[in-house]
Amino acid sequence: MEDLYKTVPKTFGMPPGSLIYSGKNIESDVTITITDYNSKPDLFDEKVIVISKNDDIETKIINLINPDPDIVRWIDVIGVNRIDIIEKIGNTFGIHPLHLEDILTVQNRPKMDEDENYLFFILKTMVWNDKIKDVEFEQDSIIMGSNWVITFQEIKNQLFMPVHERIKSNKGRIRSMDSDYLLYTLIDNIVDNYFVVLENIGGTLEDLEDELISDTSREKLKVLYKLKRENIALRNYVWPLREIVGSLQKNEYSLIKHKTLPYLRDVYDHIIQVIDTIENFRDIASGMLDIYLTSISNKTNETMKVLTIISTIFIPLTFLAGVYGMNFDFMPELRTPVGYPILWIVMITIAALLMYWFKRKNWI
Amino acid sequence: MEDLYKTVPKTFGMPPGSLIYSGKNIESDVTITITDYNSKPDLFDEKVIVISKNDDIETKIINLINPDPDIVRWIDVIGVNRIDIIEKIGNTFGIHPLHLEDILTVQNRPKMDEDENYLFFILKTMVWNDKIKDVEFEQDSIIMGSNWVITFQEIKNQLFMPVHERIKSNKGRIRSMDSDYLLYTLIDNIVDNYFVVLENIGGTLEDLEDELISDTSREKLKVLYKLKRENIALRNYVWPLREIVGSLQKNEYSLIKHKTLPYLRDVYDHIIQVIDTIENFRDIASGMLDIYLTSISNKTNETMKVLTIISTIFIPLTFLAGVYGMNFDFMPELRTPVGYPILWIVMITIAALLMYWFKRKNWI
Amino acid sequence: MEDLYKTVPKTFGMPPGSLIYSGKNIESDVTITITDYNSKPDLFDEKVIVISKNDDIETKIINLINPDPDIVRWIDVIGVNRIDIIEKIGNTFGIHPLHLEDILTVQNRPKMDEDENYLFFILKTMVWNDKIKDVEFEQDSIIMGSNWVITFQEIKNQLFMPVHERIKSNKGRIRSMDSDYLLYTLIDNIVDNYFVVLENIGGTLEDLEDELISDTSREKLKVLYKLKRENIALRNYVWPLREIVGSLQKNEYSLIKHKTLPYLRDVYDHIIQVIDTIENFRDIASGMLDIYLTSISNKTNETMKVLTIISTIFIPLTFLAGVYGMNFDFMPELRTPVGYPILWIVMITIAALLMYWFKRKNWI
Amino acid sequence: MEDLYKTVPKTFGMPPGSLIYSGKNIESDVTITITDYNSKPDLFDEKVIVISKNDDIETKIINLINPDPDIVRWIDVIGVNRIDIIEKIGNTFGIHPLHLEDILTVQNRPKMDEDENYLFFILKTMVWNDKIKDVEFEQDSIIMGSNWVITFQEIKNQLFMPVHERIKSNKGRIRSMDSDYLLYTLIDNIVDNYFVVLENIGGTLEDLEDELISDTSREKLKVLYKLKRENIALRNYVWPLREIVGSLQKNEYSLIKHKTLPYLRDVYDHIIQVIDTIENFRDIASGMLDIYLTSISNKTNETMKVLTIISTIFIPLTFLAGVYGMNFDFMPELRTPVGYPILWIVMITIAALLMYWFKRKNWI
Amino acid sequence: MEDLYKTVPKTFGMPPGSLIYSGKNIESDVTITITDYNSKPDLFDEKVIVISKNDDIETKIINLINPDPDIVRWIDVIGVNRIDIIEKIGNTFGIHPLHLEDILTVQNRPKMDEDENYLFFILKTMVWNDKIKDVEFEQDSIIMGSNWVITFQEIKNQLFMPVHERIKSNKGRIRSMDSDYLLYTLIDNIVDNYFVVLENIGGTLEDLEDELISDTSREKLKVLYKLKRENIALRNYVWPLREIVGSLQKNEYSLIKHKTLPYLRDVYDHIIQVIDTIENFRDIASGMLDIYLTSISNKTNETMKVLTIISTIFIPLTFLAGVYGMNFDFMPELRTPVGYPILWIVMITIAALLMYWFKRKNWI
Repeated sequence: MEDLYKTVPKTFGMPPGSLIYSGKNIESDVTITITDYNSKPDLFDEKVIVISKNDDIETKIINLINPDPDIVRWIDVIGVNRIDIIEKIGNTFGIHPLHLEDILTVQNRPKMDEDENYLFFILKTMVWNDKIKDVEFEQDSIIMGSNWVITFQEIKNQLFMPVHERIKSNKGRIRSMDSDYLLYTLIDNIVDNYFVVLENIGGTLEDLEDELISDTSREKLKVLYKLKRENIALRNYVWPLREIVGSLQKNEYSLIKHKTLPYLRDVYDHIIQVIDTIENFRDIASGMLDIYLTSISNKTNETMKVLTIISTIFIPLTFLAGVYGMNFDFMPELRTPVGYPILWIVMITIAALLMYWFKRKNWI
Repeated sequence: MEDLYKTVPKTFGMPPGSLIYSGKNIESDVTITITDYNSKPDLFDEKVIVISKNDDIETKIINLINPDPDIVRWIDVIGVNRIDIIEKIGNTFGIHPLHLEDILTVQNRPKMDEDENYLFFILKTMVWNDKIKDVEFEQDSIIMGSNWVITFQEIKNQLFMPVHERIKSNKGRIRSMDSDYLLYTLIDNIVDNYFVVLENIGGTLEDLEDELISDTSREKLKVLYKLKRENIALRNYVWPLREIVGSLQKNEYSLIKHKTLPYLRDVYDHIIQVIDTIENFRDIASGMLDIYLTSISNKTNETMKVLTIISTIFIPLTFLAGVYGMNFDFMPELRTPVGYPILWIVMITIAALLMYWFKRKNWI
Repeated sequence: MEDLYKTVPKTFGMPPGSLIYSGKNIESDVTITITDYNSKPDLFDEKVIVISKNDDIETKIINLINPDPDIVRWIDVIGVNRIDIIEKIGNTFGIHPLHLEDILTVQNRPKMDEDENYLFFILKTMVWNDKIKDVEFEQDSIIMGSNWVITFQEIKNQLFMPVHERIKSNKGRIRSMDSDYLLYTLIDNIVDNYFVVLENIGGTLEDLEDELISDTSREKLKVLYKLKRENIALRNYVWPLREIVGSLQKNEYSLIKHKTLPYLRDVYDHIIQVIDTIENFRDIASGMLDIYLTSISNKTNETMKVLTIISTIFIPLTFLAGVYGMNFDFMPELRTPVGYPILWIVMITIAALLMYWFKRKNWI
Repeated sequence: MEDLYKTVPKTFGMPPGSLIYSGKNIESDVTITITDYNSKPDLFDEKVIVISKNDDIETKIINLINPDPDIVRWIDVIGVNRIDIIEKIGNTFGIHPLHLEDILTVQNRPKMDEDENYLFFILKTMVWNDKIKDVEFEQDSIIMGSNWVITFQEIKNQLFMPVHERIKSNKGRIRSMDSDYLLYTLIDNIVDNYFVVLENIGGTLEDLEDELISDTSREKLKVLYKLKRENIALRNYVWPLREIVGSLQKNEYSLIKHKTLPYLRDVYDHIIQVIDTIENFRDIASGMLDIYLTSISNKTNETMKVLTIISTIFIPLTFLAGVYGMNFDFMPELRTPVGYPILWIVMITIAALLMYWFKRKNWI
Repeated sequence: MEDLYKTVPKTFGMPPGSLIYSGKNIESDVTITITDYNSKPDLFDEKVIVISKNDDIETKIINLINPDPDIVRWIDVIGVNRIDIIEKIGNTFGIHPLHLEDILTVQNRPKMDEDENYLFFILKTMVWNDKIKDVEFEQDSIIMGSNWVITFQEIKNQLFMPVHERIKSNKGRIRSMDSDYLLYTLIDNIVDNYFVVLENIGGTLEDLEDELISDTSREKLKVLYKLKRENIALRNYVWPLREIVGSLQKNEYSLIKHKTLPYLRDVYDHIIQVIDTIENFRDIASGMLDIYLTSISNKTNETMKVLTIISTIFIPLTFLAGVYGMNFDFMPELRTPVGYPILWIVMITIAALLMYWFKRKNWI
């Protein structure tokens, strides 16, 4: 989660449009998956291109251009650390230099830009990694043209696998729709992953709820604090997404067809639901902190009671014992044979009265 | 109330419009109540259809279509776990697949969609179950056409009973109005149930108010915490409803007739009142938490005072007793006969002075 | 103040427009005061009609209609528990059934509705009852037509007395203005009462301010808590009123004449001032809670100091006394005649050093 | 600062426009300073009129009317307790009765009203009185006509002195501008005084910042609390002023000339800066409260440590001493000559081990 | 950081447009760097002019005017304490007196003003000084004309160095663009510095996060408090900047060319990201304060436990020892030889039982 502290883009002090990669992936190979499809069942083609260090970029990339206007081509680029490749793709498809810089700067917040012949999106994915029981962040850029979509992912992961699967197996209506529906499917896929992250945060919160009252150790507090920060990160990524999808669904971008609008409205509803859940979690987490603090106060109070009960009972008795341990020559009580048993009776009576008093005060 | 933690729809990773039931009801029978009426007093017909596992769905559902434009038909479907039935109803009435998906996904937030020839609503009901002293949640979907209304309920409960009763007994003006008035009556009924839930939350809050000051046990805190979460859930359901009814009452949906508008305005006022009450409860609950925390602090302070008073009085006296319990050969005080009584006088004086000092500090 | 917990209207589950009285007043007599006036000094008439249980309602109410368009008639109805009378008045003046229901449902929030030939208002009054030192709530409904105003009050109180007086004595410009100015005067009168309530809350807050620092008893906290809740109630009633008067003063309702607008603007300014004061009180009250909590912490700290000082001084001394109270055969200190005085010197030195140390730490 | 609690205007229950003075000044003399000027260097005239109890108001006031359209006349009225004078001025200049009432009701919030031939302002001044080290509040009303400005001040103070000076000495461009520039100058002067008050609040806050950590006495808390309330008062006065100047600077009031707009924009920027500072102070003050509370908790914790260290070390030792002070006949330890020194060694060892343990826990 | 407390401009009580320097720099030399450039590679000229105390200002400043409309001239003025120079520049370029006053008043908040032939900006820079590990504040004013830009800096620092470098070395597209692109580059440079400051705040926060739980000393709290205040200052400077750049990027200022808009949009996105980070830091900091407070409470609780355990175990034992230290003549226990060992067994048993009880309560 150290993302929250890192904000300075590595291009600091450089002219705008300077292409410098700011992420963590340092592998030099870039893998590009090209998927061609349209509504005809036999027309489906998927090929993978790997561009290594010394490959001839020029020819490989010029082939990315979609030759057939009736086909939707999805170019899925994995690895954004090879600046030369990104630049070449940018030149080939006529992408604005500032957008190329955005693709490389992986600390961006989600945003959308309209250009003459494409829509540009920066999106943030949070994928729940069940092995390490933690969230993985990634920046994905999507560029959508009339019949092509380019996606840029930082590292190879399973994020867009379900979409590849769906196109391949011709499930749902994706093959009969245009590139804007592919865009919708990709966004929907990202939002679905938010739900998984939320479910995991929710589950941890639910467990915490029972534990916090009995166990006031600092570990629990740290878990709660970590959840709050995951929630903050999620909020940062979802709020801008809401604006983006909200404007897609409302405004008339010429690249978004009318029949895709209900689907965008649907994913918009999901985003609102994500936001509602985030806000609920925030409320719940702060309610838990109150309970936690109260539990500590309660415990201190109970510790105090134990101390006070013991002290209040024994301090006066010890005083009495001290009195009859004095060595005055003339202490008549010490000389009478009933002195000792009477003192015991007095001490037991005092203790019993104090016990009764604590009982009445509901302390024991 | 575990609802607040569950948000991921079961359709995750599926193409949009995939019909998968995400609720808890697993009974396979679906009960459909068809109510036909118009303003003519004799024209009222109510019949119940049960569709079991192996029934012929096709013919049963084709009969649901309202044959007479002068009649309002209300089709009340109980049980949404039979995907095949929901799908068939959807096809018969021309419902968009995304709306069918919404009906089956019971974790939706309240929403409204307009389609060419119907209005679609997802609503959330909170019914107070007086037997188990808790709130029961349910998702209800309403589809309103020109002369028909379809309602989908998850499980068989008493929610829409009063509406059935009112139509049957021809009370009020419902029989002389159109399907939009039936829609209004159903929403009004749901909002009325919110009031009942609020009254119960309010009652518990009122009881808590007196108890919290004297009883700082954790159980009270848990009750308060539970109330806060019920309040959060209610808020989640009512705020979107406000938008929905607000737009119904203002905008010109062709399916909403002009003479129904005052009634929608009335239910809108009720929703605002629900929201006001929720916000008040929120303020009151956080005020109570302050009182609770303060009470604990006060108790700790009082415990401390008891300990301090006892210790302050007896520790010096015990010291004195200790001094005259020492075994020095030359301690003249021990030899004089007035030593012992004088010591008692000194000790009583010290205790009295300390008591007086505590009295002046208002500690006792 | 139990108002905050009661929200469910008694008409729950009834058809809309069902007339059921939900208030507390159960007297069966309804008193109606009819006041006729216009700018002519001699034209002033005020008569009181009492409608008892078995009176002929029909004829009495038909006479309420204003016969003369040049006269303003104010019909002040006290008691809204007689549903038959309210219904008859409603029919006579053409009031919408939903508005009659609103008049009878005394848990409404303030609202305004426009109808074809009248404006309908639900207002909330808070009257400070100086005898019981508490606030009394009431719902007042006002219906304003072109040359008539009907007011409904729950119980007989002094609320509108000043207005009656002003018309009678022809003070100010009320007699020369129309029914909209009467409406203004009534609202202004209600807002003036808010100021009185605020002044009393303010006075109690001011007293509390000095007391809270020295007196941390729970009673003070309860007073503060009660003030906060009165403030919440007031806020609930004033915010909607602000919208109402705001729209009256701006929008062009045909029943509101142009020369009344400055007066409505004036009462609008007063409402804003009420809201400002409420928000200030809220800030002040939460500031006081901070002070209260801090005072408790401070007290605990001081109690702790007393205990620590006493313990720290006497526990080591008691230990020393204990040492020389031991019965070892060979303790050379016990045998020397200077042992005892030397020990005293040692003990006094220790005590003095500890005192000095506490002094330096600013504890004493 | 008791202003925050006083809100009820003394005209309660009176017809609107009733002229009743609600302020504190009871002197019966009213001082009016008339300043005439225009851009011609020799055209400057300033005369002071005092209207005492029995003076002939009529003639004195009729002379206030500006006879020459080329001259700007500023009429500065000090003292608003003489209702007859205010009323006469109102009649002479055609001021609406509601505005006259506002001038007399010194509990108003800042506001602006436009009338046919003048703009009416209620403004609030906070002047820092360096002698009593406190803020003084006052209400000032300004009425601006085409070539005249009337100002009403409650009491004689130095508030508008700099403006008088600037006109007299012909500094800046005031003499070459119209009445709207005079209005601007007066508002600017009032806002400048807010800066002085803010600087004083800021200085006290800055001092507090260092003191609060070491000194947790209640006096510091009271100072902080007083600052917070001064801040609230300031906020109440500045926010409405922002709206007023904001609309002056934007909207097209015919009385505001185009060349004055940059100056109004400038004072608007200053007001925004005042608001920013107020909000900062609010944040800083609540941050200080956190520090204060934390300091108390820290102190309690340290007090506890002292007590615990002393008790933990001496209570076991005292127990040991007690054991060997027992009078059993058969206690072999007592009889051996090395018993006493060995016990001392044991006790010192125990003490040393406990000290070491506390050291490791960083308690000492 | 004492900036937050200083708000009163030194021109208080002066006519508007009075030129008085309110900053800290008192050096009398003013250094002006003139940079001429356009897209032609050979056309680049940079010369430095130093104006000392007795120099002839007139002739030096008249030369600042850009003689060639095809050249962009950037006049970078370092030092704003020489009022005469600022005034002369103002006259030469036709700057409004109020803007000159703003340049000299270094306590302004960021703002933008449009004049007939230039845009005027007040900006705030926060430069991280790595040597003193603290933030340095400065006010920079920028005036942009059609083919010239004047910048005013308070003191000589490295702020605009990268921009000078970029023009000199002809990196990026700055030399081929107009004065509006230079304006963009300067703003972008300032925003980049915010990122550096944020990164430093973030780093300190990250360190604090681990330290706060174990170390509850006041020093850590002071660091947290200082961070919060730096955050407040940053917020004050960035929010107005957001409005300024937002309007630049949207509105049609004739001086801003169309092809610069994407760049302004890019810097706008960066500003939004700065704001997001600031709000995150605010949330994180308040979460840390909660952890800090909780840690203190936890520590107090643990201190209490130590005290209670020790006291609870030894106080009863000491009492027993006291009992058998009494000097009654008839105490049979003292006479039996097994008395002493039995007492030890009893005492050890009591201690063991108490230990077991504490173990079960999870105290040890």
